[in-house]
Formats: sequence, structure tokens, C-alpha cells
Amino acid sequence: MNYSKLLLLMLLLFPGAMASAQAKKGVDFVWYNPASEKFLTVHNQLWTGSAVRSFYDRLPAKAESVVRSPVWKLSRNAAGLKLVFKTDAQEITIRYVLSNKNYAMNHFPATGVSGVDLFAENSDGSWAWTYGKYQFKDTVTYTYTGLNLDKEKYKDGRTFHLYLPLYNSVQWMEIGIPSDKAFKFTPASAEKPIVVYGTSIAQGGCASRAGMGWTNILDRNLHMPVANLGFSGNGRLEKEVVDMIVEKEAKVFVLDCLPNLGSETANIKSKIAYAVNTIREKHPHTPIILVDGSHFTEGRLNATRTKGILRTNSLSREAYQELKSKGVQGLYYLAKEDIGLDMNDSVDGTHPTDIGMLKYAAACEKLIRNILKL
Amino acid sequence: MNYSKLLLLMLLLFPGAMASAQAKKGVDFVWYNPASEKFLTVHNQLWTGSAVRSFYDRLPAKAESVVRSPVWKLSRNAAGLKLVFKTDAQEITIRYVLSNKNYAMNHFPATGVSGVDLFAENSDGSWAWTYGKYQFKDTVTYTYTGLNLDKEKYKDGRTFHLYLPLYNSVQWMEIGIPSDKAFKFTPASAEKPIVVYGTSIAQGGCASRAGMGWTNILDRNLHMPVANLGFSGNGRLEKEVVDMIVEKEAKVFVLDCLPNLGSETANIKSKIAYAVNTIREKHPHTPIILVDGSHFTEGRLNATRTKGILRTNSLSREAYQELKSKGVQGLYYLAKEDIGLDMNDSVDGTHPTDIGMLKYAAACEKLIRNILKL
Repeated sequence: MNYSKLLLLMLLLFPGAMASAQAKKGVDFVWYNPASEKFLTVHNQLWTGSAVRSFYDRLPAKAESVVRSPVWKLSRNAAGLKLVFKTDAQEITIRYVLSNKNYAMNHFPATGVSGVDLFAENSDGSWAWTYGKYQFKDTVTYTYTGLNLDKEKYKDGRTFHLYLPLYNSVQWMEIGIPSDKAFKFTPASAEKPIVVYGTSIAQGGCASRAGMGWTNILDRNLHMPVANLGFSGNGRLEKEVVDMIVEKEAKVFVLDCLPNLGSETANIKSKIAYAVNTIREKHPHTPIILVDGSHFTEGRLNATRTKGILRTNSLSREAYQELKSKGVQGLYYLAKEDIGLDMNDSVDGTHPTDIGMLKYAAACEKLIRNILKL
Repeated sequence: MNYSKLLLLMLLLFPGAMASAQAKKGVDFVWYNPASEKFLTVHNQLWTGSAVRSFYDRLPAKAESVVRSPVWKLSRNAAGLKLVFKTDAQEITIRYVLSNKNYAMNHFPATGVSGVDLFAENSDGSWAWTYGKYQFKDTVTYTYTGLNLDKEKYKDGRTFHLYLPLYNSVQWMEIGIPSDKAFKFTPASAEKPIVVYGTSIAQGGCASRAGMGWTNILDRNLHMPVANLGFSGNGRLEKEVVDMIVEKEAKVFVLDCLPNLGSETANIKSKIAYAVNTIREKHPHTPIILVDGSHFTEGRLNATRTKGILRTNSLSREAYQELKSKGVQGLYYLAKEDIGLDMNDSVDGTHPTDIGMLKYAAACEKLIRNILKL
């Protein structure tokens, strides 16, 4: 039995035992497990507590028998989820066990696929980021040290936001702090989230680190929960998923599935109409944003894919116009031109790198600020 | 014996044999090996032909007994090198064998560490990029298809620039084209290059793909050869390397070693003085650019590293002022503020992602355009 499994077993056998002090470099460390608190500690999660099979899932347990198997599996990736905590510690260690030990992909580094990412929220609403030293072993660790800047200003500690892995499933996670420091998880708020239903791009491929997935950039820039329902290759605007999403209240619903609908152009308009009408029925006043496929960065070399993307966008825009003409209110469109990806912005012609993610987030933020009059 | 080794052996035994047609999907493919031409096919390489041990090395064979072993090993990585060819093919396959079979790093995907990257140079001086389908097997392949845009405009074919792997060593490479298409390597020009001597950042860590290393962006934006002498962790402004570099003529020498000099602050000023004076002695009029350490993206969380970076920058700026006051002409300084990296621009607080690379290249381009009056 390896160390992480032993820890897991001890945790199951002796709840609370792992929060006891452990020696590290002569300093006692205390470990905090978000799953051991009596309140909700996972932010940006739509279904919580007893509704989910595992603590860091993005769809409810009941989804397993309803959605296609790839959607269910991907829904267990922690994309867009975050933990928020306040501490005056100058050293923080995160340790966790992931389901998939293939921590990286050829075009997507381990830090993005399987890493965590830590930001502090400044009192003026800006953000401070720092790097952690990582080890991608059986138990992954990120160690942050020297968190000593502005310490006079933040005497009572700082509030940290820890983004969870974009493309892997967290089985178990703990946060370690020197025992003489204060630590408190910030409960997930009851504020309605922005809900994004989309593809690999929405899930976060291929950000260099978790915080650079575009829904997470949006979450920081708006200071507002953003729920990520991106399912790599499987964001197909399906009835089963739409029917589940509408159970929840949202500030805005963002439907960003076109890149996964290239092979079913015959269904695009009816799928969009079903999703919009279903949302509108349950939520008469919640804004809905339809997003163009903008995963097109081949510049002036390759016409084939260009045609396909322009074709799905054209169908989507027709669906939008038809719904508007039928009197659907609060429907908005985010055009490819507004996102503006170019040949420097993706790793593979499809998946944005961090620069593409920043463009995606900026375009979505601008539209949402307009809609919500922020 | 695996396929790639067999190919390599056949090539050694029967030079030219591999350029014969091979069947692929019913279309004959012809394979072209840059090492089989009678003229220089590797662009951005300072030492060429019989001066180098291996065809894609960045330092001459004689360097092996002169520079430290890590510098020698890293000099065999193909960072900044490119092949240029003209073809009317709409499908291009690159196949190659690399020394290091660990194709990726945890913070740096295989596409960046070990991948190639293809751009077409448009007749108006702009660039067109497209994605290739890659396989990171024993023989790595990138297959580009559908290169059919603007084909009326480029009836005689297009000129392609293929950037080689940033952090791996190419042992053997061939370019395959359908046999009914024209193909011709473009010889490396005798134009003097911009020479960049630097660290991991200059070598290209952590661009998502080869073309996004900042020296390669600069090469495209200036339409000018840029020689990459970035040595990951080992760009220490050493006498042995400086003495070798000054053998070569350059348009501009860029010295960007500060991030690797943090542990030897006592020597920074004398090292800079030695490098500048040595270059000036051999090249009385060639501009020299000193670059600040700008690998600092921790925002407002971590003071320790900030202090270190500001300290090395301060010493470098003092060296610059002292050299200027001693009458050294043509000496320029690229400040951290001009590059302007922030917390969104690196994967790990040190290595720029593509967005950081674009900022690096833009700052350097602006200064070089000023200096060379472009």
C-alpha cells in the first residue's frame, strides 16, 4: 500500500485524525481536508453534498445513468472547481491523489491537465499569483513558499483561491499549513453562478495551468462564481445535459458547444432551439449566450476546416435569428470576431493556449458586463 | 532494429536512396533529407557543414572540449534552427528521430519540447500557420494536409519555414511530398544574423510549439536570421562561450543571461564587461543589447525572488552605465519594464508561455528596429 492510499485509509478509519500535526522540516504542519468540513467548501460546483457521487464531481450521481458514458467520466474532472481559504501562513502545501496517472497530454502539460493553481484575492479586487513547486508523483504536491509580500497590509491573513485540475479527477486533497498559523475554508456562496456548457475549450484545454482556463479567468475577473460544464470532445448540446442544467438557477447560461457539433450539422439548429426553449421555460428571465465556434487559427493555409467552422457558425446564427424572431427574449450572441483568435493563439489549431484563453475570457466578460449592467 | 533505425542505416549505406518514392495511401511520396543537399539547408545556424559534429548542432565540434558539458549537450538541441523550402504540395509530412525519448516536461508539452512548427511566408511578408497531426513515437511525425488556401495566388508553390524542436536534438529528419509535386530547399542566406546568447527562456521554454519561442517570433517578424544560443539553466555569460560567439559576424548581439546568474552576483559586472569588451574589440560597430531579468511574474505575493531579480538587474544596469561612461558605443539596454511580463504570462513564475514569448519578442523587435533604423 502506498503512502497516499494509506492516508486515504487512515482518513476513512479515523475522521479528523489527519488534521493532527505532522513534522516537516522541524515545523509542525496541520492538514485540512475540504471534504471533512460541515459546510460546502467546493466553489463553482452546481451539484453538491449528497447529490454527487464523489466530492469533486461536476454532475450529480443520477447523471451516470442518464448521460453518455464519456460525459459522465469527464464530469468527474475538476475543471472550474476551486477551494477558497483564508490563512496567514507564508507556506502552503497542497497534496492530492488523481484518478488518471497520465498527468499530461502531448499538447497540454501536466501543470495544465493535472496541476492546481493558487491566487490571492487582494483587498482592492485585484489578484496576486505565485508559483508552486510541484511533484507529479502518486500523490501530487504543490508547495508554495515565501508568501510574504504585503504582509503588513494583510495581517489577518489573505484569502486564497485554489483552482483544481482541469482534466483530471481529484480523489482526495489536503491543504497543509504550519501549525502556528490560522486556517479557515471560505464556504461556497449561494450566489447564482454563470453556467458554461461547452467543449474541451470550455473545460480548459490547453491552458498552461488551471487558473488560465477561460472560465477560471472569467471567475476572477467578474468576482462571481462560474460553473464549468465543459466536456472534452463531448459538449454536444445534448437533451440529457440541458435537462439537468436547467434544474439550477444561473445568472447567465453560456452555450458553447459548436466545436463538438461539426459532424451533426443537420441537428445544430434543433439542438440550439431545444436548449434555448428549455432554459427559457424554466428560467423566463435568465440571459442566454450562444457562442460561435472560434477554434480556427490556420490563418491563410487551410480552407477545409475553415469552411466547416463557418458552416456550423452560420447554422448557429440562423438558429439565433429564428429564436429572436419568435420572440425569445434575453438571447445574446458571442461572435467569433469578438473572440478574435489568430494563428498565435492555439497549440494545435483548435485548443487555445493561455493567450487564446485570455481572449476568450475577455470577450465573454465584456458581453456579460453589458448584459448584467456591471 | 526499429523502423527509424533501419531508415537511418539505409541512409548511411545508400545515400540518396531514401529520396526514392514510397507508397502512401496510394500516392507516391518522395522524401527529402536536408543533410543530403550540396548547399546549406539549416537556417539560423552559426557554425555549419564540417564545423559541426552533428548536422543540427548549434555550437561547433571544437566546443565540446572547451565549454562545460551541460552547455555542450544543450547546444545540440535544435532551438531556433529552421528549414526553408518551396513546394506546391498540399500535403507535407515531416518525420524525424530525436535523441531524447522523454518528449515533454511537466510544465512544457511535447509539442513545444520536441515538436516542429510550420509557417508559410506570404508574398506580402505576412505569415500563415497551420496545424499538423503529430505522433510522438520512436520516429516522430507531423502531417500537414489541406494546404489549399490561396492556391490560385501561389501557383508556383509556397515557401514554408519549418522550426525545429526547441529542447531536443534532431538525429535525422526527412520531408515527404507527393511525388507529382515540386520541392526545393531554400539555401541558408549569408545575411548576418541577430545572435541571442541566453538561458532557458531564450532557448524557448515554455512555448507551446517551436514557432512560439521568442527568437523564432523575432525571426518571423523581422524577416531576418536569428541565431539561438539559449542554454537552459546554463546561459551564464561564460568566457568560453563569448570567445566562440565573437568569431561570427552579427547584426546585433543580444546578451540575455541574467536569469542564470542569480547565484553569482559577485561576477555579474565583470562578466558583462568581459562580454561587451570582447565583442567590441572584434566587432567595433555591432550593436550589443543587454537584457534585464524579467522572469518575475509573482505579482504581489512573493518578495524573496523579487529581491533577487531586482538585485541582478541593478548590477547589470550598473555595468551598462559604467561601460557607457568608459566610452563604449552601440550599447543598448532592454529593461524588464519594456518586456512587461505579468502574472498571466508564465507557466511557473519563470518560463513564459506563448503570451510571454510574444511580449519578449515584441520588446526586442521594437528596440532592434530602433537600433537598425528598420
